[in-house]
Amino acid sequence: MIRLLKSNSKIIGHILLLILLISGQVSAQSPNDWVNPFIGTTNYGTTNPGAVVPRGMVSVVPFNVTGNSELNEHDKDAGWWSTPYSWDNNYFTGYSHVNLSGVGCPELGVILLMPTTGDVNANVSEYGSEMSEQVAHPGYYSTYLNKYNIKTEVSATKRTGISRFTFPAGKSNILLDLGNGLTNESGASVRIVNNQEIEGWRMTGTFCYNDGTERPVYFVARFNKAADSFGAWKKMPKMNAEAAWSATSNKFKYYENFQAEMSGDSIGTWFTFNTIANEEIIVEVGISYVSIDNARLNLNHESNNFDFEVTRKNAEKEWNDALSNITVKGGTDDQKTVFYTGLYHIQIHPNILNDVNGQYPAMESFETLIHPNGERYTVFSLWDTYRNLHPFLSLVYPQQQLNVVQSMIEMYDESGWLPRWELNSTETHVMEGDPAIPVIVDTWFRGIRDFDIEKAYEAMRKSATTPGVDNKLRPDIDHYISQGYVPLMSQFDNSVSHALEYYIADWNLAQLAKELGNEEDYTRFLKQSRGYKNYFCQDFQIIRPKLKDGTFLPGFNPRQGENFEPSPGFHEGNAYQYTFCAHHDMEGMIELNGGKKAFAKKLQAIFDDGHFDMANEPDIHYPWLFNYIKGEEWRTQKELNHLMATYFKNAPDGLPGNDDTGTMSTWIVYSMMGFYPVLPGDMNYAIASPVFDEVTIKLDQNFYPGEKIIIRNTGSGDKIKAIKFNGKTSKSYFINHNELVKGGVIEIIH
Amino acid sequence: MIRLLKSNSKIIGHILLLILLISGQVSAQSPNDWVNPFIGTTNYGTTNPGAVVPRGMVSVVPFNVTGNSELNEHDKDAGWWSTPYSWDNNYFTGYSHVNLSGVGCPELGVILLMPTTGDVNANVSEYGSEMSEQVAHPGYYSTYLNKYNIKTEVSATKRTGISRFTFPAGKSNILLDLGNGLTNESGASVRIVNNQEIEGWRMTGTFCYNDGTERPVYFVARFNKAADSFGAWKKMPKMNAEAAWSATSNKFKYYENFQAEMSGDSIGTWFTFNTIANEEIIVEVGISYVSIDNARLNLNHESNNFDFEVTRKNAEKEWNDALSNITVKGGTDDQKTVFYTGLYHIQIHPNILNDVNGQYPAMESFETLIHPNGERYTVFSLWDTYRNLHPFLSLVYPQQQLNVVQSMIEMYDESGWLPRWELNSTETHVMEGDPAIPVIVDTWFRGIRDFDIEKAYEAMRKSATTPGVDNKLRPDIDHYISQGYVPLMSQFDNSVSHALEYYIADWNLAQLAKELGNEEDYTRFLKQSRGYKNYFCQDFQIIRPKLKDGTFLPGFNPRQGENFEPSPGFHEGNAYQYTFCAHHDMEGMIELNGGKKAFAKKLQAIFDDGHFDMANEPDIHYPWLFNYIKGEEWRTQKELNHLMATYFKNAPDGLPGNDDTGTMSTWIVYSMMGFYPVLPGDMNYAIASPVFDEVTIKLDQNFYPGEKIIIRNTGSGDKIKAIKFNGKTSKSYFINHNELVKGGVIEIIH
Repeated sequence: MIRLLKSNSKIIGHILLLILLISGQVSAQSPNDWVNPFIGTTNYGTTNPGAVVPRGMVSVVPFNVTGNSELNEHDKDAGWWSTPYSWDNNYFTGYSHVNLSGVGCPELGVILLMPTTGDVNANVSEYGSEMSEQVAHPGYYSTYLNKYNIKTEVSATKRTGISRFTFPAGKSNILLDLGNGLTNESGASVRIVNNQEIEGWRMTGTFCYNDGTERPVYFVARFNKAADSFGAWKKMPKMNAEAAWSATSNKFKYYENFQAEMSGDSIGTWFTFNTIANEEIIVEVGISYVSIDNARLNLNHESNNFDFEVTRKNAEKEWNDALSNITVKGGTDDQKTVFYTGLYHIQIHPNILNDVNGQYPAMESFETLIHPNGERYTVFSLWDTYRNLHPFLSLVYPQQQLNVVQSMIEMYDESGWLPRWELNSTETHVMEGDPAIPVIVDTWFRGIRDFDIEKAYEAMRKSATTPGVDNKLRPDIDHYISQGYVPLMSQFDNSVSHALEYYIADWNLAQLAKELGNEEDYTRFLKQSRGYKNYFCQDFQIIRPKLKDGTFLPGFNPRQGENFEPSPGFHEGNAYQYTFCAHHDMEGMIELNGGKKAFAKKLQAIFDDGHFDMANEPDIHYPWLFNYIKGEEWRTQKELNHLMATYFKNAPDGLPGNDDTGTMSTWIVYSMMGFYPVLPGDMNYAIASPVFDEVTIKLDQNFYPGEKIIIRNTGSGDKIKAIKFNGKTSKSYFINHNELVKGGVIEIIH
Repeated sequence: MIRLLKSNSKIIGHILLLILLISGQVSAQSPNDWVNPFIGTTNYGTTNPGAVVPRGMVSVVPFNVTGNSELNEHDKDAGWWSTPYSWDNNYFTGYSHVNLSGVGCPELGVILLMPTTGDVNANVSEYGSEMSEQVAHPGYYSTYLNKYNIKTEVSATKRTGISRFTFPAGKSNILLDLGNGLTNESGASVRIVNNQEIEGWRMTGTFCYNDGTERPVYFVARFNKAADSFGAWKKMPKMNAEAAWSATSNKFKYYENFQAEMSGDSIGTWFTFNTIANEEIIVEVGISYVSIDNARLNLNHESNNFDFEVTRKNAEKEWNDALSNITVKGGTDDQKTVFYTGLYHIQIHPNILNDVNGQYPAMESFETLIHPNGERYTVFSLWDTYRNLHPFLSLVYPQQQLNVVQSMIEMYDESGWLPRWELNSTETHVMEGDPAIPVIVDTWFRGIRDFDIEKAYEAMRKSATTPGVDNKLRPDIDHYISQGYVPLMSQFDNSVSHALEYYIADWNLAQLAKELGNEEDYTRFLKQSRGYKNYFCQDFQIIRPKLKDGTFLPGFNPRQGENFEPSPGFHEGNAYQYTFCAHHDMEGMIELNGGKKAFAKKLQAIFDDGHFDMANEPDIHYPWLFNYIKGEEWRTQKELNHLMATYFKNAPDGLPGNDDTGTMSTWIVYSMMGFYPVLPGDMNYAIASPVFDEVTIKLDQNFYPGEKIIIRNTGSGDKIKAIKFNGKTSKSYFINHNELVKGGVIEIIH
């Protein structure tokens, strides 16, 4: 268990851990004990310490980003804000029950359960409390509310959250606020069913401030004790002249004993209990994206009848089971904590969308479908995750990756298109490219094939070939196909970023076409994938946006685009961060950049001159690219050692930036193990120096012939001297996935 | 059929009537043809020309009081406003489906159906249209929307509204706006079920700007044609800094093809049809105060499958049947129109609340009950209607009055108290007194007795005797009982008005106590009813507010309270208008005022000096009081002739003020027939000069022995010379109800 206090989180964390180890409360061998859910909760990591189970639909997150309180450093209304929790904030306003972890856009963060005492107050700027004594552990979170002297604890099942509030004596309230939240969508409806149950829904949507992704989330909240009194509230609209006669214009209006449907922009309910000192009130909340009935079904099915400890223990067991797929030896406590917290973050998204009866809302539709088997996943941040998270799932959690691909193909079935950034069965159209292709192709090549490859191929081919602006994944496909690149058409379009994604997708599609015996497609898509060369500017020796007439963008500054400033042609980056993104054609890219020596020099300069950005995805494969130049592999080891030590820490600021639904966490987990799938669709893992003495990856016998992979790190040199696989020295710094999954030992000798 | 155009409504109305008579379209004998639903639609009459059936839950009313348009003289946001329609306005923004007629407080006026063309626009300030060519007829209303070239027609059944929109060729929309409305409550929820059906609810409440009377109204809207496209909208809340990234901050957001639940303060839906020229689209809307399911049940049960003409004809037949209970001969066309329009307004409220399956929301509760039989009524403006409307119903529509009393006793059963101003099963606590008592007692004495009189007596006795401020109907009962009057306790309380109502109620209760053999209660309540004398100030020779210590309010100005200005002790009136309100003790009141001559003189001075207020209830019995002074009865005839001619017209300003759910209309209907129930609970009707040559009232054989009452007006003098009942000359200017209902002829000879 990791406790973090702000004064000196790391030290206190270790002291507490020591105490816990001594007291025997937890086993030192439990991977859960090496998870610090506070990692990434500041420095734009956008993770949160809330309670969740692996791939749970529900997470119960301490919400502390509203209220304009002096206790908060950040307020969601004061700027772009994308997380329900900030380590820097101390003004707690409730537990939100549906949340996103590690994303760069605001969404969800709703269905807020807030305990208070005394008179009911629905104003979030007034009812919030200073929080302290935060404790987070996989499947468990607790904080103390100073203002009210209430201890709060939460845990979760896949589709429910459970809260245990320990109240002082007196009038104790539990508010259910449906007005506030992280999402910028609004509107909710609620009905107090009886003095122990509340049902309703809350509208969500506007991910990345976009419209068009709206869907209600339904809930049923159940209390272990009957409320002594209850009611609903609504913030009333501001009246004009009529305000002279109304007591509630622009104010919160309280509807005591209200039991009909209540709807509005800013509504909520309160349950009040006359509590004795230290009385615990427990609330369970079931969630569904289909209906209130399903939320109740989920609650009935997953509830442990208000037994908080059982729910918590089950959640902890789920986590320990999931995290036990990899065991490590050696490394510091902090390294272990960074590693297992990474593994923990990888298990949050994608998450399940279907209810216990299999029902889920169809993609881009309000139809309800029933999942045939397995789990329907949601939250696909594919522009991020295609790079490493899906290859990782294929290796360590192949059943989950199969669920991913099956879910993606279902999305195509339902909406006509594969997803790019899918959220709760809506395509948010965030970021660019055609990342479903490398995900599916990579999965296939890794040997996970229990899906309809013909339909998948049809789906991928559709986005790769459908002409016109109605191509949902490649809206600029016409130029891309006719000119071989996407020309810059407006000042800050992301034309180059688009094209670079299409090249990688097309290379993947070509590989699959070949595998499936479609030589024509192979040739076509492989040729298209080479188009990246169009962007190479000899003058600048770097890629450069190109206009429709074939000339390069004038007034070019390759640095422009740093720090998320707008840049012509590039999305969230600059020319440096995108210039080595044709790693599907390493030979071609090396040649284009002047041969091996020049390439290595230019690549090294990216790091040396401060152009490398650890905080965003486009260049995160860069450190591994030295492995492609014989004799330069030590640079990969060196840069990785530096990056791991600099950007990944056992601390709230321990992620370099948005975790991107586990992408950054996957990067650090792979890097700490000493290998990385540089190019999705390419089965070669690049090898570098593990931070641990030994890493053991359990293989799923349903998918792979081997039982486990052991990576053994020996010797004491700075650089790798030799790599052996099952005793045989490897000639290269790569090892093939399909060899690896037969099981065995990689020995990395320093 | 009456058509009214603003230029010269009366003349055009008659011309059109003439045309219709000649063309044979309508029968001259049909009472419907003498109804002008535009009467009372300005000059604070607060009636409306919408389509409704007798006592219908639904009325379909042209809504034209929002949008801040230059086409409107009045806008609901610019001041106190209590009606969904104003004759003075021309900016039409849809048809509202639940409405109040003739009330002085804003409420309902929601579920707005608005046809438009072209692009969908959800902004009421922009989508409204100039209206013209208004036609209103019982059960039918039509207007033309100049901006869109759309003809709109509406009709109704008891629980459904039907709209027929005749569109031009092109893109035609039907908006369902759940944000706007007359009520100041907010919040709604809607779901597009499919491309022909929408369901949802809209919160209502805040009658008279009061909080605590909230209840959702549920609806199902069904279209005769599948929409070619559809969607929902919501006005988005105003963002702060985040508005920089959102396109919809503080704007209407349009959700195309949206089919999940949509909730919010300002939401709606649109259905779009590609119409050919003159294409009719028909919409039927079912309403319920219980549930969406019941709204659908009501719709299924009462719908005529989109046959507008059948629904309209049925509505017209219902009206003709109801209005045929009284037939008149003689009088001018305008007089007939004023008369039958009055009768029409009497048949609007109270209206039915229960659904076709008998279900209704229990009083002051969210429980659903099933009505045993008959109809559960709602909209009880009893401070107004106890004076004349209920005695009138007892005589002309006794089954309806039985429903009224049964509903009131049910309300007592459900909530523990009889109603005062009940609206959709909530007590609004508007106005004062204990008016349920005279209603029930009067009904009993008129011979309508199929209700539980013991329970009724228990209910009445409860409000008349329960001590303390928690007495919901008589919160100041302690002073009233101990001191015999209600003292003025704060500057503008309505203490005198309260007490005067209690005196009348107690007199009624005493009469019933005696009838039921309870001599003790008789004595007690009769004695209490005499307490009005406490207020009589010898100095001013008028009633005057009294302080707790028994002294009169200093600085008294008997005129204060005119024109609804605040006045110490008096509600909506001044001392003149309240001074003769002890007509339950005419002898005592005459004596107190110096005997018969002095009384007649003082009463005459009220009229002569301009103190009489025809626009509000407290003094509307005044003109009839001369009948109590032998030899002065001619003054009643004279004042009534003047009042009828001055304040009641066949024109939009043809009511003196709020119709008060038919109270003013009952006054004119009685007065035009030449008799009036001066005191509820007293079976003597005062007689005056009818405006018609002959009036025939059909008696309901289920309640009364007689078949009909004929009032024959003969002679040509200014004053009544003699009154004969069934050939026998009457000694007084009164006739007893229980004699009258044996049937026969009253001859009033001038």
